[in-house]
Amino acid sequence: MSAQQQPGLTAGQVERITGGQPLGPVPDGQRKFRLALPGDADGGSLVVAWERAALGEAAGRGAGLVVATVELLGAEPAVPAVAVADARRAFALLSRELVPDRRPPPGVAPSADVHTSARLGADVRVGPAAAIGADCVIGDACSIGAGAVIGAGTSIGAGSVIHPGAYVYPGVQLGRRVILHSGSVIGADGFGFVASPDGPLKIEHLGTVTLADDVEVGAGTTIDRGTLGATAVGARTKIDNLVQVGHNVTIGTDCLIAGQSAIGGSTVLGSRVTLAGNAAIADHVVIEDDAVIGALSGVNRRVPAGEFWFGIPAEPRRDWVRRRYLQGRLGEIWDYVKGQRSK
Amino acid sequence: MSAQQQPGLTAGQVERITGGQPLGPVPDGQRKFRLALPGDADGGSLVVAWERAALGEAAGRGAGLVVATVELLGAEPAVPAVAVADARRAFALLSRELVPDRRPPPGVAPSADVHTSARLGADVRVGPAAAIGADCVIGDACSIGAGAVIGAGTSIGAGSVIHPGAYVYPGVQLGRRVILHSGSVIGADGFGFVASPDGPLKIEHLGTVTLADDVEVGAGTTIDRGTLGATAVGARTKIDNLVQVGHNVTIGTDCLIAGQSAIGGSTVLGSRVTLAGNAAIADHVVIEDDAVIGALSGVNRRVPAGEFWFGIPAEPRRDWVRRRYLQGRLGEIWDYVKGQRSK
Amino acid sequence: MSAQQQPGLTAGQVERITGGQPLGPVPDGQRKFRLALPGDADGGSLVVAWERAALGEAAGRGAGLVVATVELLGAEPAVPAVAVADARRAFALLSRELVPDRRPPPGVAPSADVHTSARLGADVRVGPAAAIGADCVIGDACSIGAGAVIGAGTSIGAGSVIHPGAYVYPGVQLGRRVILHSGSVIGADGFGFVASPDGPLKIEHLGTVTLADDVEVGAGTTIDRGTLGATAVGARTKIDNLVQVGHNVTIGTDCLIAGQSAIGGSTVLGSRVTLAGNAAIADHVVIEDDAVIGALSGVNRRVPAGEFWFGIPAEPRRDWVRRRYLQGRLGEIWDYVKGQRSK
Repeated sequence: MSAQQQPGLTAGQVERITGGQPLGPVPDGQRKFRLALPGDADGGSLVVAWERAALGEAAGRGAGLVVATVELLGAEPAVPAVAVADARRAFALLSRELVPDRRPPPGVAPSADVHTSARLGADVRVGPAAAIGADCVIGDACSIGAGAVIGAGTSIGAGSVIHPGAYVYPGVQLGRRVILHSGSVIGADGFGFVASPDGPLKIEHLGTVTLADDVEVGAGTTIDRGTLGATAVGARTKIDNLVQVGHNVTIGTDCLIAGQSAIGGSTVLGSRVTLAGNAAIADHVVIEDDAVIGALSGVNRRVPAGEFWFGIPAEPRRDWVRRRYLQGRLGEIWDYVKGQRSK
Repeated sequence: MSAQQQPGLTAGQVERITGGQPLGPVPDGQRKFRLALPGDADGGSLVVAWERAALGEAAGRGAGLVVATVELLGAEPAVPAVAVADARRAFALLSRELVPDRRPPPGVAPSADVHTSARLGADVRVGPAAAIGADCVIGDACSIGAGAVIGAGTSIGAGSVIHPGAYVYPGVQLGRRVILHSGSVIGADGFGFVASPDGPLKIEHLGTVTLADDVEVGAGTTIDRGTLGATAVGARTKIDNLVQVGHNVTIGTDCLIAGQSAIGGSTVLGSRVTLAGNAAIADHVVIEDDAVIGALSGVNRRVPAGEFWFGIPAEPRRDWVRRRYLQGRLGEIWDYVKGQRSK
Repeated sequence: MSAQQQPGLTAGQVERITGGQPLGPVPDGQRKFRLALPGDADGGSLVVAWERAALGEAAGRGAGLVVATVELLGAEPAVPAVAVADARRAFALLSRELVPDRRPPPGVAPSADVHTSARLGADVRVGPAAAIGADCVIGDACSIGAGAVIGAGTSIGAGSVIHPGAYVYPGVQLGRRVILHSGSVIGADGFGFVASPDGPLKIEHLGTVTLADDVEVGAGTTIDRGTLGATAVGARTKIDNLVQVGHNVTIGTDCLIAGQSAIGGSTVLGSRVTLAGNAAIADHVVIEDDAVIGALSGVNRRVPAGEFWFGIPAEPRRDWVRRRYLQGRLGEIWDYVKGQRSK
């Protein structure tokens, strides 16, 4: 049903968007093909394949148009094709052409509450029951979804999309084309308390959060404000759902932080760092550029640039593999020791 | 206090609801008993017990009426009783009679924003500041809580309860009697990016989410939409709080997914699968019918039907038990090796 | 930028707030210093230091005023100083003086929906699009943020701050000075189902949640209501972001529960318990007073008072350390066994 709502693309459009070359049978130039999964394909479908099995399935189902590398397609594909250098990239480019506009309607909904001192740029959309506080500056072409709350004194760069029910505390700075998904919370207090005879004494957080241009924050993800100074996320870094980012964390550019990961207070991630799902980094740790942390790992010390660490506590993956190998020998070892002792 | 707000039930009502038989002393047929914990019981209390200790405590405190199996009650219980075949089931049935109505008042709150093109069935309730987008179809007797946001083009089956502050992105399909708890987010973009010289290139998600009849989604849980096609949850599957379900996941019927679990993109769960708390399943994995994954486990390969797997990475529980046993022998092994080497 | 918005404090104010004594050069008594990180310090900055390196950095950058212990400062510090007994405590006290007011403006926003039967104390602030249900009792000087939803019959003690988009289900009791951060959900149903031939049969939750005075709940954290009776959190307990607290959990006073932790149903935590990040406690477990559970640990049995447990499954830290030591000997052990066998 969703696929049927797609406007679809002609072969010529696919060639232009992907920069690819036509190959195989010539399709009807007027026909629009809808992007589909290989297993759902029919004559009206456009399938992008980066594995031989997917291409075979699409061709077998008579897909109207396929996009793949020439290595996969061969010189004479059985179905109309567009040959590209990188099929995944082609898929991303095509998806961007086809995605429906999910923003609220143009203008400010009557039930939204925009403070009189807030400054809205051109073509800003504000959904029902959204709230924008005093002294906010919202850039051109931003979209503030229904029920989203933008705290006083926050600035949001042009082209950002704040989905319904995202919460931005006062005094936060978001760059251009930032995306906040529903339920994300930017700028809540960090978890800082001092033991005292009267119980935990709260450290108030005077700092802020800065998200640079093109940062995306997943649903339900929480990024705490700095105690002093900022919790800072670098340009183009993408954060998945239900991730916790502690106060005064610094994250570089182009990182990928997968779902349910956690980054402890004052920790520093370099650029192009990848955290797989459920990775957890302790407080005050440094993860250097291009490091990769495996799923479900827990890091409590510095990870050098470019290394792949794994486990709890995390260690270089080769060490973890060695550890697993040795554990797998434990049965033999125990049999040997028992045998010797019984002699 | 909460218990005092209960209307309570007469012994006759309890018999009818549970299908049980009276046993022991005969209670006042007019008196209404309030469902209570064994430790809080008094003469006005109804206690359901599935353990001997709980029954003893209830009787010792003079509970007005107890519900248990005849095995636990014996032939002549000291307090008025209703004998049932399954006490837990009886408890569930009684709880459903007694639960207060927590929906918003009838009708559409004046501060709600229902798009003129949305179609609402009979007896739909919409709470304050809720938003229902264009072309939505909301079935009879649905409840949309305060501040909930239903994106354009979404359909919700009859009898569903969307709690306050649940967020449904555009174009999602929910079945009948679906429950979404507060803070749940259905249909946000999956985490899909393609590496490029300009940083991660976003793959737009053209697919949807489908939740079948009687699915329940816990507070703060996020279910991402498919890249193409749907992320699909089967009938009667129950998902706890703060769970992450990735794009294009398929979950069968009657599954139980406990809190903070995570299911990676394109993974398939069969029917009647149980994930204990904090279980994590990698991308592109299959968990077959009736499998059980233990708490805090991380699954990275196919789990056969009916098996109980455990650990990180997960393995059949018997293998994990053997591994733990051998690890427990390590002290002895090390002592032996040290002893031999020092000879 | 955020620091520049601080009003700042004079040296005299710093002495009065911290109870400290002036030491070193005498600062301009009229000048106001802004609290800053050591690395951001200049002549207008107030730096609190609890490590020698931080003090050195602040002094090197010519901080206008430093706060530290006399042990760290020495008798004749190079920069104006205030000597205190506990620098972290001094920092907390100063932060509380300087934190900006992030509440909504005074009064009830026109777009808020306060049920006519709700009783609001003096000086209650209610933000835009917030909803307060029937029969709620909101104490003096409470703040209910934009888009927050307070279910019917809930009571909130004086001085509490409910941040935007926090959700409180009906019939919950919050004490005085409770803080709920955005996206937190208090009182959703616990995860309770009974297997039946027709699929999982829902157990309705008739109980409630009680949060005692001075409890703080982090962003996105979920605390389920009791099946019967209450899920109860003791006074001054602080809970971080994205934590899951199951139904009928009892938590004592002065606990610290770090981010993404999970506490299973009916589990009991004593007082002054610490859970480090991502700790998970199974159902029906008791953690006694003053116990500490390490990060990423999974507890499935009773933890005695004051002990530090670690690992999955968790064990006393000394046992875990021994286990790790022995695992580290596995290479040697294997080499020995191989050597013997090849003889």
